[in-house]
Amino acid sequence: MDTEFRQANEKDVASFEKPDRSKLFRNVIVVTCMDPRVNPYDQLGLKTGQAITIRNAGGSAKEALRSIIVAQHFIGADGEIAVFHHTDCGMSRTTTDEVRHIVKKANPGRDDIAATVDAIEFHHITDIEGSVKSDVKYLAENPLLLQGTKVSGWVYDVETGEISQVAEAVAAESTVGTQA
Amino acid sequence: MDTEFRQANEKDVASFEKPDRSKLFRNVIVVTCMDPRVNPYDQLGLKTGQAITIRNAGGSAKEALRSIIVAQHFIGADGEIAVFHHTDCGMSRTTTDEVRHIVKKANPGRDDIAATVDAIEFHHITDIEGSVKSDVKYLAENPLLLQGTKVSGWVYDVETGEISQVAEAVAAESTVGTQA
Repeated sequence: MDTEFRQANEKDVASFEKPDRSKLFRNVIVVTCMDPRVNPYDQLGLKTGQAITIRNAGGSAKEALRSIIVAQHFIGADGEIAVFHHTDCGMSRTTTDEVRHIVKKANPGRDDIAATVDAIEFHHITDIEGSVKSDVKYLAENPLLLQGTKVSGWVYDVETGEISQVAEAVAAESTVGTQA
Repeated sequence: MDTEFRQANEKDVASFEKPDRSKLFRNVIVVTCMDPRVNPYDQLGLKTGQAITIRNAGGSAKEALRSIIVAQHFIGADGEIAVFHHTDCGMSRTTTDEVRHIVKKANPGRDDIAATVDAIEFHHITDIEGSVKSDVKYLAENPLLLQGTKVSGWVYDVETGEISQVAEAVAAESTVGTQA
């Protein structure tokens, strides 16, 4: 990607404006999937400088915890945490056992690889709405989150581009509800 | 963010076009920081549908490993992995010990919180270019990466918007070099 990245970056640099955090920082942490179809900037109307964005396979809040602690306790991002999972997610089409099996089958006789992959929890998703609620609950009940943090949970529909909220809770209150 | 997200999403949905993966998927995995000033779409010229994007505090390749395994072995993303760290990163202004200290100091007498935060490795960064090279080496030497995967390492300058490549390696060859 050297050439593509460099050429695109040169264009972007030509109109570069340093984000003014005092103006732009909307104090929201977005946790979402790595999937190419997901683009929180376009889909949530966020501009550069406005949100802390954490992305991983599935949009796992558990894996995001380290980053959230840094964002809250060190960077001072004490606003809402919005967790997005999406329809047709790869993590809902597989399981931890299946990923381990695929990797091991591709590497026969490699006990080192088998041991390493067996030690990884892949955070697969059984049901999208359920996984969002479970992640919101996990964060809201986590003693490491700043008390009073609002945690919202959303589903992004890759077929229509629409978002819908399915959960909301406040850290240390552990109340996870479903919105209409 | 309910109202803001909903209103912005409604606008986006009005012009929604389902990304055609056969056309758009550029088969690149971008690993970068959660920092609000970083926006890989604008800064690297990527459109929705073109890249798998993994983001966490610092852009840690170690934390990204689970997602990379899923992307390569399950989703079939066998193209380049581009690791970006950036200047003025929060993770370069702190250390694992300091984050643990801040959290514990804010929660006196909470042994549960102390134990949990002490168990988390925060992957702080001592030197940006060094951390990129170290992450590229980590991935290229990792037996779980598909053989032949190109791994590139980059620094994004938040003052100018410019990217510069500082490392490149091929998985299973473990050759990490510095580009001029």
